[in-house]
Amino acid sequence: MPASSQSVSALQTPALLVDAQSFDANLAAMSEALPGPRLRPHVKAHKCSELARRQKEAGHDHFTCATIREMEVMAGAGLGADLLLANEVVDASRLTVLAERGHRVTVAVDSLATVDAVVAAHISEVLIDVNVGLPRCGCDPTEAGSLADEARRRGVTVRGVMGYEGHAVGVEDRAERTRQVGESMAVLLAAHADVGGDIVSAGGTGSFDINDAATEIQAGSYALMDTAYGKLELPFRPALSVLATIISVNRAGWAVADCGLKALGMDHGNPSLAGEWAAGLVWFCSDEHVTFSPPDGMALPKVGDRVEVLPAHIDPTVAYHAQMHVVDAAHDEVLDVWAVDMRGW
Amino acid sequence: MPASSQSVSALQTPALLVDAQSFDANLAAMSEALPGPRLRPHVKAHKCSELARRQKEAGHDHFTCATIREMEVMAGAGLGADLLLANEVVDASRLTVLAERGHRVTVAVDSLATVDAVVAAHISEVLIDVNVGLPRCGCDPTEAGSLADEARRRGVTVRGVMGYEGHAVGVEDRAERTRQVGESMAVLLAAHADVGGDIVSAGGTGSFDINDAATEIQAGSYALMDTAYGKLELPFRPALSVLATIISVNRAGWAVADCGLKALGMDHGNPSLAGEWAAGLVWFCSDEHVTFSPPDGMALPKVGDRVEVLPAHIDPTVAYHAQMHVVDAAHDEVLDVWAVDMRGW
Repeated sequence: MPASSQSVSALQTPALLVDAQSFDANLAAMSEALPGPRLRPHVKAHKCSELARRQKEAGHDHFTCATIREMEVMAGAGLGADLLLANEVVDASRLTVLAERGHRVTVAVDSLATVDAVVAAHISEVLIDVNVGLPRCGCDPTEAGSLADEARRRGVTVRGVMGYEGHAVGVEDRAERTRQVGESMAVLLAAHADVGGDIVSAGGTGSFDINDAATEIQAGSYALMDTAYGKLELPFRPALSVLATIISVNRAGWAVADCGLKALGMDHGNPSLAGEWAAGLVWFCSDEHVTFSPPDGMALPKVGDRVEVLPAHIDPTVAYHAQMHVVDAAHDEVLDVWAVDMRGW
Repeated sequence: MPASSQSVSALQTPALLVDAQSFDANLAAMSEALPGPRLRPHVKAHKCSELARRQKEAGHDHFTCATIREMEVMAGAGLGADLLLANEVVDASRLTVLAERGHRVTVAVDSLATVDAVVAAHISEVLIDVNVGLPRCGCDPTEAGSLADEARRRGVTVRGVMGYEGHAVGVEDRAERTRQVGESMAVLLAAHADVGGDIVSAGGTGSFDINDAATEIQAGSYALMDTAYGKLELPFRPALSVLATIISVNRAGWAVADCGLKALGMDHGNPSLAGEWAAGLVWFCSDEHVTFSPPDGMALPKVGDRVEVLPAHIDPTVAYHAQMHVVDAAHDEVLDVWAVDMRGW
């Protein structure tokens, strides 16, 4: 949806902004490091098929999804060449029609019950999801081989293994992160030896250049980034912000902008402010407000001024917004408006 | 939208559930305590015009909104008898058409700039928003009178004052909560003496039976409740949960359900589990998962089992969901499906 007549400064707030230059740089940096199918971009981070299309144009046409809804929208957008649902489901029936329409559908399984779900839905390909240290999904590594055998016995093709080292990807110290990723991948490779298949799928933005065991990396956050990943000294730039308007200023030393808990993922804590306000202090967020004080020595903003708010965690931030505005901020121009079309389940 | 053929156990997950019995009891308890216009229900808590219609049926037809979108949807649903936008806006132009169509529109102002916005949009009624202790919006109490004078000078009717004691409504100790609410309301009443008008609008679910200074209470959470307000020994029952499915179980002692950061407001911390799992421990939430361990001595659930997840904060939870299912859980029946139609801005 082109929106060439819109200026950034005229947008109603709160509004999700994607800085076009940083976004392009992030995609270029990643596709150079992990070209083509070495990266299987995870769409959960952005939930936007138009953004995924840019990832495909950068060379990646195998994608990772977290929900059935994401699988459906990606297939509907013509991005179904090789879709991995990297999550267990008990009812896979909505995926049947995707496979029938010729989209390649692979589903993670970690138990007999989830193999049952795949068989019942006539899905023909799976990865064995192996627990590599994060207490979440994934079978015990010692049981991966027998689970693969059982899946094959029931007529399902086992393409390989996956195992997400989610406990390690956010570790700030690179040496320690490297050590933990290595430990997890040793577990995954041992399971892979029992399972077979071509694929070892793992990793994320925090381990994209560390995890050399995986045949493909499931990174998603790299495209837009957030302040949590921003601490890791990765070669990706913050490209996402929430534009907000100052609606109230108090002489006692604080200002209030119209971006709150319903516009920001809060599990990683408070957002930060961009630009001239970066050294300011965010006091707290309410449903529709962020209260903050300016950096020392700096005057308070005025009612009507704009600020850019940087979320601590991108994934649950994007999921609150119906659309993202791709902008050239230097020229106050909205270049494009992309629907966040994979929200919901 | 009647959905009489649906059973709760057949719902796709995650799914927002409203327990009909508890919801009805909450509305009855509140309308007995604060009948008719003594309550101005805040729709930000539920963002659902069908739910607001039940509040109107319980006797309350003046409503509080936090966003212009909420004002528009409420008016469109025929619930525009007396709508208060209890928030400052710099651009009120979208409200002009509501007033023109005969809906009563009142807007909070706390600065000359926000009075300007109201005048520019041809809105004829305001409340002077007064800071009563929460560092957010609201003018300095000593300036409320002159701001009211200026609004009147510009042809705007000043209906009175509002002032939200948001720092006090969540204080767990009732005596201390009462003291803090009293302090805030002394400030508000002093400002009201300078401003005039019939309305003193304030309060929330945590102060609904404490705040006797306000002529109307802006409570919203009481209808559905959450675990944060659940700590306050209020006469309202938890009526909202997120139904989830167990998708993975690990013998080492944890289970994973399909309800995560994109289905839960997380600013008040982790959710809890309902029913037999209530004494279980939530370890952490991921984008689409909650990892938890069962209560001591209790067996792990099985893949495919259902659990109800109780959010810590209702407002940002509801805002993630497109609809809520009103259920009679005892009879496994979905009584109704209500659109969460006030999401976005």
